[in-house]
Amino acid sequence: MKGDARKNAAGTARPGLKTPWTTHRRHPERGSHDWETIAAILDEGVFCHVGFSVDGQPFVVPTGYGRDGSVLYIHGSSASRMLRALSRGLPACVTVSLIDGLVLARSAFKHSINYRSVIVLGSPRPVTGDEKLHGLRIITEHMARGRWQEIRKPSAKELKATAVLRMDIDEASAKVRSGGPLDYDEDVDRAVWAGQLPFLLVPASPVPDDRLREGIALPPYLAQYARPQREAGRPSPDP
Amino acid sequence: MKGDARKNAAGTARPGLKTPWTTHRRHPERGSHDWETIAAILDEGVFCHVGFSVDGQPFVVPTGYGRDGSVLYIHGSSASRMLRALSRGLPACVTVSLIDGLVLARSAFKHSINYRSVIVLGSPRPVTGDEKLHGLRIITEHMARGRWQEIRKPSAKELKATAVLRMDIDEASAKVRSGGPLDYDEDVDRAVWAGQLPFLLVPASPVPDDRLREGIALPPYLAQYARPQREAGRPSPDP
Repeated sequence: MKGDARKNAAGTARPGLKTPWTTHRRHPERGSHDWETIAAILDEGVFCHVGFSVDGQPFVVPTGYGRDGSVLYIHGSSASRMLRALSRGLPACVTVSLIDGLVLARSAFKHSINYRSVIVLGSPRPVTGDEKLHGLRIITEHMARGRWQEIRKPSAKELKATAVLRMDIDEASAKVRSGGPLDYDEDVDRAVWAGQLPFLLVPASPVPDDRLREGIALPPYLAQYARPQREAGRPSPDP
Repeated sequence: MKGDARKNAAGTARPGLKTPWTTHRRHPERGSHDWETIAAILDEGVFCHVGFSVDGQPFVVPTGYGRDGSVLYIHGSSASRMLRALSRGLPACVTVSLIDGLVLARSAFKHSINYRSVIVLGSPRPVTGDEKLHGLRIITEHMARGRWQEIRKPSAKELKATAVLRMDIDEASAKVRSGGPLDYDEDVDRAVWAGQLPFLLVPASPVPDDRLREGIALPPYLAQYARPQREAGRPSPDP
């Protein structure tokens, strides 16, 4: 069943995604197990937060990632605490959060943040050989699509120093809060400004490296850099 | 010792911050236990990721927060899984990450992300009474400084529906990666663009609520909205 669901990239119901752990208890109206919603948030995010526990102490570590269909790849130094812990098969949580703005209500209680987030639960496992290289390509292309073909590929020594983990997106949920404040009717006449302050994560001017060889132009994928943005429910090709 | 260190807001050495858990193993040159660096990142971040485990499964949940001196406050619905779990005194990890841009190297291996992050370890505990209200003020003011005095304060019923947790910043570390790619010398002559693509999180135009009372102007703290930004090592007043 899960295998079938995984291949159904255009489908909206992925039975494996919803489990007792990923069922929304608070604000269920903000929750979603819709695959397109989950995929779109994962594609727009630049980095994720990986949660894992060592000897009962949780850690939350920001790191890069990439998505290939229903698989997340993350990577890091083979010697890092996170990669060593996760390579042992520990359960983990990968969360990608996009902040869309502040929600400024008339009451303190109704203040909120507009955001889109995805939580993926599972036990990542290290990959080797061709899949390891593939994972690094996915992670690099997630940063900037078009980059991989231009750059020097990892050497054997570099591959050895890098660990790549694969996490299947079997158990996942999205949570989205959007729109203005939801003040109580009795508060709306208060003499205080209320509304949204949207935030945008925007690329600034690229900064060439000091040692950049002369005559090398900025590639189009950096000159017109944009994170992939897809409307929920509108399928588009995977990277 | 910790008590003394906590009060020393202008000091740079806070003995309690560095522990075996927060000692940087990878890229120690990127790590810091400098209090001003930690405080500046915590103040600039809009939201945090809270990590905790329930029955061995880690969760990483984005949420708002605020800092008052060496105390972090986070809040949520009293009935949420996160707040109920953390109110039991479980160990947690609060991570705040700011993304500053992409680092585009000539080799795949040297690609990186410029970021500033802080990890705080500890066991949050619920606060009540005056400190609960204080925590909510700190969290609201963290969103937009000047907001609290304008809005309706929480009612008894709203206070009951909200849990506020306090986490002392005793065990914490910052990690910062900045600057251009660190390519190997043998790679710098490659015919590929290399450098940084900086990212900025910027406020867009405020969107007034549909029900906004006529004649209410946008307050200055939203019209000229900016996250607090402080240079590391340059003390400035706490909020």
